[in-house]
Amino acid sequence: MADSSDPPLVLVHRRPSLDYFDELLSRNFRVLNLHDSSDPLPIFLSRHASSVRAFVNVGRLEIDAELLSHLPSLQLLVCTSVGTDHVDLAECMRRGVAVTNAGDAFSEDVADCAVGLLISVLRRIPAGDRFVRSGNWAKSGNFQLGTKVSGKRVGIVGLGSIGSLIAKRLEAFGCIISYNSRSQKQSIPYQYSPDILSLAANNDVLVLCCALTDQTRHIVNREVMESLGKNGVIINVGRGGLIDEKEMVKCLVEGVIGGAGLDVFENEPKVPEELFGLDNVVLSPHAAVATPGSLNNVTQVALANLKAFFSNQPLISPVRLD
Amino acid sequence: MADSSDPPLVLVHRRPSLDYFDELLSRNFRVLNLHDSSDPLPIFLSRHASSVRAFVNVGRLEIDAELLSHLPSLQLLVCTSVGTDHVDLAECMRRGVAVTNAGDAFSEDVADCAVGLLISVLRRIPAGDRFVRSGNWAKSGNFQLGTKVSGKRVGIVGLGSIGSLIAKRLEAFGCIISYNSRSQKQSIPYQYSPDILSLAANNDVLVLCCALTDQTRHIVNREVMESLGKNGVIINVGRGGLIDEKEMVKCLVEGVIGGAGLDVFENEPKVPEELFGLDNVVLSPHAAVATPGSLNNVTQVALANLKAFFSNQPLISPVRLD
Repeated sequence: MADSSDPPLVLVHRRPSLDYFDELLSRNFRVLNLHDSSDPLPIFLSRHASSVRAFVNVGRLEIDAELLSHLPSLQLLVCTSVGTDHVDLAECMRRGVAVTNAGDAFSEDVADCAVGLLISVLRRIPAGDRFVRSGNWAKSGNFQLGTKVSGKRVGIVGLGSIGSLIAKRLEAFGCIISYNSRSQKQSIPYQYSPDILSLAANNDVLVLCCALTDQTRHIVNREVMESLGKNGVIINVGRGGLIDEKEMVKCLVEGVIGGAGLDVFENEPKVPEELFGLDNVVLSPHAAVATPGSLNNVTQVALANLKAFFSNQPLISPVRLD
Repeated sequence: MADSSDPPLVLVHRRPSLDYFDELLSRNFRVLNLHDSSDPLPIFLSRHASSVRAFVNVGRLEIDAELLSHLPSLQLLVCTSVGTDHVDLAECMRRGVAVTNAGDAFSEDVADCAVGLLISVLRRIPAGDRFVRSGNWAKSGNFQLGTKVSGKRVGIVGLGSIGSLIAKRLEAFGCIISYNSRSQKQSIPYQYSPDILSLAANNDVLVLCCALTDQTRHIVNREVMESLGKNGVIINVGRGGLIDEKEMVKCLVEGVIGGAGLDVFENEPKVPEELFGLDNVVLSPHAAVATPGSLNNVTQVALANLKAFFSNQPLISPVRLD
């Protein structure tokens, strides 16, 4: 048994490469790492984690009812992502497990990346880069024209911390912003669309940065893409499941929509191979949050949530469970 | 001899693909196209263009003293580029030939592209696109981290119409802007650096969008790149000759600077092949102005300059010849 003066025990799941995370945690906590044992997960948890009150899930290990059943003392699940679609939130609520996410730690980086993908698709930057590297510029000369960014009508799906920063950035390009979210925001100057179909119909670009939930899964279906139209572009920095990916691939191949900039996919890291030959899509390996600045931020947010929990203070970035 | 009631004669040089240009011009002018003859240029000009008062140079045909000597009646040279480094401006002044450029026609598109290149380099967007398309994401997993855009210190070389729009856009990303130009601008909130060496020393990114002149040729030399440093990034949407390209290639290969986003090169469309293997550079085929919106704008500016000239009104976008 641990002495009551011992630092609290924290269970950690993380990629092997992120060992600095344990180092940081171990200044304040005893760290029990899921990877320190070759036992099957249920056996490991039953043997070593029955008294664990806090679990840090770095990355996206699926947290379902079965896994939670092996952690009977759990009171806090710290996630290092913004989205928590890999967590059974209803089961957490039932068990009285609080959940925290990355809060605003990634917002700037994701917003920067969304705007970068938008310009990259419209101005064909990766396609141009391929054109030059292949030697085709010197050989064949003409590169296909891109599409103007300034003045485009951009509809943002999910106007939270990330969406608001995307809007701020695109306003400086002279883009006209409107948005869809669960409810209309007060004191926001952008036009609100109560449904995504009308948002698609009235915009040149759709930017997806909302949470993936039962309500938002496949929110972008064929009908929405038809409404967006043949010059329309989709940028997705939310979750792959927000789009009906099979239909999106068809719509891109058939020219139902004009292009896409995708940082996320339905079955990551698997990406539909039909996309690999298309010049009007830009593919990104779920890298919107991948800067040292973001990783440092999210580490601080995770630590702050743990410290708050163990000193009975309010959590820093709690996730709504209802 | 042409009747005095005939529309004025305008000499045009353009790419064969831009035939819509002649169509537009021919509504108000008689068009003499350089490509309508297989005669060598001097013979064609001497035979057909001795009375020509206006010449529209679509693209970048070099206008030197020899060519000008075959156009003794020339009074106006309309260029469709922003930069006029392909024109012997001193000889134009000596001969009393006024020169116009694209004015602000391209400014938004070039600014959008500059910001797109900046995000693309720092966040490694084309490298990520290659990583996904090659199948390496699914195979090997980890993609190298990018660098945060928000908060970067950006030094802009040339704060004209394009540079000001770049600054406006980057401010919305929380970047800190400073600039170098021929002289300090009044009522501009950004810090002024009197020389490019100090600008490089005090910034994370240099954006080049000034004119190429005898004073600015190779303004970015090895010393400037060493001053910018190993994490520093250069974005060039001006002219290739602004950078000592051979030294830049060495600096990129040796890690003296961190990366580059290049829309222009010293010997376009030739690009140093050493760059083709580098993941920290983004290469663009002089496409910053290449949108239908820009082409339409510049056509209107060219037409407006011609109409102003033939009705003795002030030119719309005159180039300073001194």
